[in-house]
Amino acid sequence: MNNTFSFTYRLPTEIIFGRNAIEKTGKSSQELGKKALVIITKGGSMRRYGYLDKLLKSLEKYNISSVVYDKVSTNPTVEIVRETSKLVQEQNCDFVIGLGGGSAIDVAKVTAACAVTNVDPKDYTLGIEKIEGALPIVAIPTTHGTGTEVNKYAVLTDTETKAKRGIASTKIYPKVAIIDPLLSITLPKRLSAATVVDALSHAIEAYVKKEATKISMIYSEEAIKTIFNYGPQVIKDPTDVRIREHLLWASMCAGISIDIAGTTLCHGLEHPVSALFNAHHGEGLAALLVPWARFTRPAVEKHFGK
Amino acid sequence: MNNTFSFTYRLPTEIIFGRNAIEKTGKSSQELGKKALVIITKGGSMRRYGYLDKLLKSLEKYNISSVVYDKVSTNPTVEIVRETSKLVQEQNCDFVIGLGGGSAIDVAKVTAACAVTNVDPKDYTLGIEKIEGALPIVAIPTTHGTGTEVNKYAVLTDTETKAKRGIASTKIYPKVAIIDPLLSITLPKRLSAATVVDALSHAIEAYVKKEATKISMIYSEEAIKTIFNYGPQVIKDPTDVRIREHLLWASMCAGISIDIAGTTLCHGLEHPVSALFNAHHGEGLAALLVPWARFTRPAVEKHFGK
Repeated sequence: MNNTFSFTYRLPTEIIFGRNAIEKTGKSSQELGKKALVIITKGGSMRRYGYLDKLLKSLEKYNISSVVYDKVSTNPTVEIVRETSKLVQEQNCDFVIGLGGGSAIDVAKVTAACAVTNVDPKDYTLGIEKIEGALPIVAIPTTHGTGTEVNKYAVLTDTETKAKRGIASTKIYPKVAIIDPLLSITLPKRLSAATVVDALSHAIEAYVKKEATKISMIYSEEAIKTIFNYGPQVIKDPTDVRIREHLLWASMCAGISIDIAGTTLCHGLEHPVSALFNAHHGEGLAALLVPWARFTRPAVEKHFGK
Repeated sequence: MNNTFSFTYRLPTEIIFGRNAIEKTGKSSQELGKKALVIITKGGSMRRYGYLDKLLKSLEKYNISSVVYDKVSTNPTVEIVRETSKLVQEQNCDFVIGLGGGSAIDVAKVTAACAVTNVDPKDYTLGIEKIEGALPIVAIPTTHGTGTEVNKYAVLTDTETKAKRGIASTKIYPKVAIIDPLLSITLPKRLSAATVVDALSHAIEAYVKKEATKISMIYSEEAIKTIFNYGPQVIKDPTDVRIREHLLWASMCAGISIDIAGTTLCHGLEHPVSALFNAHHGEGLAALLVPWARFTRPAVEKHFGK
């Protein structure tokens, strides 16, 4: 492990956390643009539960118009980002909002880049091109897993090569993260569990990573403690907003910890699993986390006692 | 206490923490400007220990020129900021660096504002004018007290009215905070103790404040724990850089906690003490912290158990 007292840290994202925070989206977006591309997943839950409606109303209140793209799937592909980027240009949108789980937000992040750079998203996934600019991004998570609302990462799947690849760029930090616990009370039990595992895995992986710093470690510790206390409870009472508050807080903390320290082999092993079998990322991690921890323990236990 | 899960958070400052971080000042300032006003205290220690020299060399390496102002005192005054702001304009400086304790950095912060707004600093201290803009600011603390390197505050004394007043503005966040533990090993024991008390007081005051949030509380807790472990040690071994590392980390955390939650009566009571008697702020706090805690305890203990 490096000296944890030697680090650089900057998180440019403004975090707006709290019940009904989604109603503040319009006000917070005023300086970002006049027309948003709003990206949601294809399952229909964002419409069914009224979350999309709340968002659009908040935008309208500040005279921000919008176009909705609603075809994002789990493990979103390069092809989808090609479509959304074209849509931004055709519709003259000047910022991008991702509302949903990690897939909707990650598509929003890469779309924001491709729409201004005209680079094909595949070239970003392959590392052929570096992201040189992006439209402003607003991230509104409805799951407590990825933490992508507060970091510089996005993950896309290349269907041709069946490869799931991470993109990292300081240009794709969301300008604003709207973290509203009321948007996650409708998340089904199975997805709730899977996303909790994703956040837990982030926090643990970042904690033992060589690149961990004092700052990443306090966020990792906070996430791990919170998930141990509140993770199991969400399965018993998925509609309890107080539990969701803790879990969104934990996934946010874990998202900051990986922003600083990155993930390890555990995430590295999972990406082919979900790319090849279209498994949910959190469920793939659930299978891998314990074997990975056993494998990694000898290398890290000297740093942490037992 | 408000719901700690309802908050807005953004820290725009880039933090560069670590031994010899001062040597990175030039590189980090490249995009900020071409000519810096460097503000230091009048005691001479910044020259004597070679810290100023290190800073200027780092700037020169990136072709950044500089002018040094070396007349800042403890509890700096409105008059000093009038001088420094004039100097920025006469010398065509385009950014401001504060190297030293809170007084040098706070003068740098208000100078950066006055130099572009042409407002008299007294009007900021009286709240007659709101800060509407500022030159980029670089903060390089050599004490582990104020945490001003990572927050939006500055404190100035108005000698006419003998009032010490706080200024708060998001425009005066430092763009970069260079936190180099090697710059604090020469801090005398008495000042070391006083600045530790300042940081401890920030952390505790922010922790019990109504405006505390989940984020401010993890930073408060981290600062309090660290100071209890390492505060007493610095008096025994002031030149041990590992102890200084912990204390600079703690004062930074405490600085973030008050950025979010603010301070309380304890700081409010101290400001007249140092304004009227020109006492060191940390020593004034040392006298007030325990009586304040006794007074405040009944109001807050229901939130924290015992």
